[in-house]
Amino acid sequence: MLYEINEKALKLESEGKKIIKLNIGDPDLATPPEIVEAAYDAMKRGKTKYSSAFGEKSLREKLASVHKVYADNVVITPGSKWGIFSVMYLLLKDGGNVVIPTPYWTAYELAAKTIGAETRFVKTELDSNWKIDLDALKSVIDKNTRMIILNNPNNPTSGVIEDKVFDGIVQIANEKGITILSDEVYAEYGGDHILVTGFSKTFTMTGWRLGYVIANTDLIEKLGRLNQVTISNVPVFIQEAGLKALELQSELTEAIRQEYRERAKLASDILSKSKLEFSEPSAPFYMFPRQRGLDSERFTLSLLDDGVAVAPGTAFGDYREHFRISLTAPRDDLTVALNKICEAL
Amino acid sequence: MLYEINEKALKLESEGKKIIKLNIGDPDLATPPEIVEAAYDAMKRGKTKYSSAFGEKSLREKLASVHKVYADNVVITPGSKWGIFSVMYLLLKDGGNVVIPTPYWTAYELAAKTIGAETRFVKTELDSNWKIDLDALKSVIDKNTRMIILNNPNNPTSGVIEDKVFDGIVQIANEKGITILSDEVYAEYGGDHILVTGFSKTFTMTGWRLGYVIANTDLIEKLGRLNQVTISNVPVFIQEAGLKALELQSELTEAIRQEYRERAKLASDILSKSKLEFSEPSAPFYMFPRQRGLDSERFTLSLLDDGVAVAPGTAFGDYREHFRISLTAPRDDLTVALNKICEAL
Repeated sequence: MLYEINEKALKLESEGKKIIKLNIGDPDLATPPEIVEAAYDAMKRGKTKYSSAFGEKSLREKLASVHKVYADNVVITPGSKWGIFSVMYLLLKDGGNVVIPTPYWTAYELAAKTIGAETRFVKTELDSNWKIDLDALKSVIDKNTRMIILNNPNNPTSGVIEDKVFDGIVQIANEKGITILSDEVYAEYGGDHILVTGFSKTFTMTGWRLGYVIANTDLIEKLGRLNQVTISNVPVFIQEAGLKALELQSELTEAIRQEYRERAKLASDILSKSKLEFSEPSAPFYMFPRQRGLDSERFTLSLLDDGVAVAPGTAFGDYREHFRISLTAPRDDLTVALNKICEAL
Repeated sequence: MLYEINEKALKLESEGKKIIKLNIGDPDLATPPEIVEAAYDAMKRGKTKYSSAFGEKSLREKLASVHKVYADNVVITPGSKWGIFSVMYLLLKDGGNVVIPTPYWTAYELAAKTIGAETRFVKTELDSNWKIDLDALKSVIDKNTRMIILNNPNNPTSGVIEDKVFDGIVQIANEKGITILSDEVYAEYGGDHILVTGFSKTFTMTGWRLGYVIANTDLIEKLGRLNQVTISNVPVFIQEAGLKALELQSELTEAIRQEYRERAKLASDILSKSKLEFSEPSAPFYMFPRQRGLDSERFTLSLLDDGVAVAPGTAFGDYREHFRISLTAPRDDLTVALNKICEAL
């Protein structure tokens, strides 16, 4: 359905219709020019050759210091998606199942399907503020469970897992010898879980395809060797752009975060006037409102004819009454789109 | 051994020793500035967002016209290595074996090993000018053979498969229902085989990671969907750089090819004075000389202490008496290195 919505949106656009696209998580904001200049500068310095499949030493060291680990615990990947896929591939290709709380990012299930791993879902609900129930989690785990995937903040709800819940999940995983793959945007690494993240959202670098995995040196070694056979290395000029992004992090990201906070406030204000129910996003980027009785697939398709694209809840699990709004348009477009949503409901 | 040589070379360099590195296929030449500028220009135009997992329409169309196919027959990949891996993954993950003429590029075997596919080798020899013997090829094929990989021009010999031999292989493959995966630098697509190639050698763009696969639309659809789950998309600004490279192909590549021809002539002249036997490379980039009785692993390791890195023949199959020289250094460095090789033998 995500694909169908996107194709229809592109088709309508090619026919000359204006579509406000809140259906995919691609920020309207440009990559900060300092990052672009760093890439250009690196290209001109000849950083256009083969390099380490593990990533540049300078970037690995910088990330190690951010996450308080060693450089040997870091491998650079072409996007966090490749990090997730390759970790899942290495840990699940010989069988076993993976537990995923829902609503979930579609890529996890697609990756599992591609690899041939069984998926087991733990449903969370708006009514309990998307909290993962530890007993429900335990009940889907069996002796073939190899991995639990935690997405933090969650796509599509933008909810953040409370520390207490996270600790509870870690304890269950440790007891049963299950690996936690934690897909986090703002994260401090701790314990023996695997952390996967990237530069996309924090620095509006979605199309650069720059991510990384933090894990024990054994797994990092395996991931580097898998990189060698598959993607070779992330272009060095892109890694140098990433290094510059981290160096300028405090000045670059505050403006980006502030913009999303403003947008989330705007969205809350407008949607509050409708019958929609939703949780205030802890880390605003997406919203995942519900209207009782809504068929979100029909709703999102017909909303396209009003010039607004959003994603139906069914793309994230069993959530037909929900839809996902990406806060990825300028505030004036967002206002128009949100008002149209309210009218259409 | 390739890895060991490279690590030792880097270690010696970090100790301040000058090493002329002819061990890996990474050109010393810079990426042409026109290509760098095209990437920079695209970044500044905001080509830094998510895009199609199949690649940009403009680049697919340009490549389609080059290879006389439709745009739907083309998928863009992060390097030709990913093209090779993902084709092998899709065709071999459910079992079967793959036939590879030797000497071969290490990545094929590593990919097969990663996927869990059995490899079968057909040995070719310097004495028959690296010609693939069709009867030998037939003898290793059985009902579980899914794929034959042809590398043209060959790494490490730089030999080109004669048309007559190529046609013979195609006929065998057609009779037995086997797919040919053809890893070619300069290629015209014909018939129903799969063509994988990239921009690395032709445009000295190794570190950009830009390649593509040409195949029937069915396989292209599957490759695009695999991209979606794994690498998402090749950065659009890199694809725009590739498009510029193709537009300027005639002016950019002639100088590069001429330089390699000069280097190959230089190498032939110097090496002819030694006891080394070798074939003149048809598409000069690598040379793969032999000296009877040589233990190339010991030779290449000890040659490092003389400041020259080359690759032992054992890295490419059962070729202990051979070693590979990459013509990837300026002519004065190359002269020094080749003379040292002759002295050391």
